Amino acid sequence: MNPHFEIKDTEQIYSVLDSVEYGTLALSVDDVPYAVPLNFVRIEESIYFHGALSNKKMKMFLCNPKVSFSVVENYALIDSDFSTTEGLACPATQFFKSVSIDGVVKSVENRDEKIEMFTALMQKLQPKGGYKPFEDDGYSNFLKNTAVFKLVPSHISCKFKFGQHLNEERFEMIIKHLKERNRPIDSATIEMMQAQRN
Amino acid sequence: MNPHFEIKDTEQIYSVLDSVEYGTLALSVDDVPYAVPLNFVRIEESIYFHGALSNKKMKMFLCNPKVSFSVVENYALIDSDFSTTEGLACPATQFFKSVSIDGVVKSVENRDEKIEMFTALMQKLQPKGGYKPFEDDGYSNFLKNTAVFKLVPSHISCKFKFGQHLNEERFEMIIKHLKERNRPIDSATIEMMQAQRN
Repeated sequence: MNPHFEIKDTEQIYSVLDSVEYGTLALSVDDVPYAVPLNFVRIEESIYFHGALSNKKMKMFLCNPKVSFSVVENYALIDSDFSTTEGLACPATQFFKSVSIDGVVKSVENRDEKIEMFTALMQKLQPKGGYKPFEDDGYSNFLKNTAVFKLVPSHISCKFKFGQHLNEERFEMIIKHLKERNRPIDSATIEMMQAQRN
Repeated sequence: MNPHFEIKDTEQIYSVLDSVEYGTLALSVDDVPYAVPLNFVRIEESIYFHGALSNKKMKMFLCNPKVSFSVVENYALIDSDFSTTEGLACPATQFFKSVSIDGVVKSVENRDEKIEMFTALMQKLQPKGGYKPFEDDGYSNFLKNTAVFKLVPSHISCKFKFGQHLNEERFEMIIKHLKERNRPIDSATIEMMQAQRN
């Protein structure tokens, strides 16, 4: 990875994992890969998923627990003419944050850990509340009949791409063009560019 | 897959692939999977990517060309109390469109096919134009030094989840709550719910 883009700060990595609604899990059995998008929640450094007890990914975990998980928070598309006047398409790119996690998936059987997972998942995706806590008897069958899996990371890497590698002139030219285009994602992108530049 | 959610219409599948900026590719070598997010473009039923000539994914393709590719277009989070008054969290969900493609990756070496790919990719991501066509001599080194890969699908599946499985009462209750919440994604979600219901 271009060292300009590499993020090692745990708080910044967690902030991506805690704000993005889904990630894509890569599994493999007999070297046939399978990519599956999933809602998830982070608890400490582990990633938790849930699903039906007997679907494809659950069967694959049992054969091969090694997985790779990818999360992306996309920012603005940077048009080719935002940073050059030479007329070539090559500078066109997209700015983004991404986290990549390699590790092993373990089945979570313990009722308390399942409750902790669903409580955290709902806090992430429905922060307003408005439901009974998962300790309630009404969840007994749900907790029994829903599989919970935990990805224990062996390696986490994180990339923020916001033009950190560009010289001052091209960097400022992109900011000028983003201000002119003025989509909602453009102002969020300018903020991130400036934060990463400092 | 729940048959309510399955989309078989090619036009609808292509509309997802043509509007989403990135997808996540799952690769595997020696049953160690790797998930990598990529910008892409569809040409007919193939998916094209590009990248540096000698990075991790390019090396993996050479060892094992079998891949799985996942594209997601996320819609509204559906809060648990949008479709029930019982107070349980279980009905909480997210509506989405997704496409999953299994197949084999092939290296594209032909200059004309590379030009066709970059032309289509730029039309997708920078439809306003504003750059020289890829036939221009200025792209000679770029075309030589950039790897292009083509995913030839063996299987494509597509899922639209917009409450098609719900009874009329719960379906209308969700629409009422989305109207009240009134985020931009909520009105787009209502449109998709009604389109899929018909």
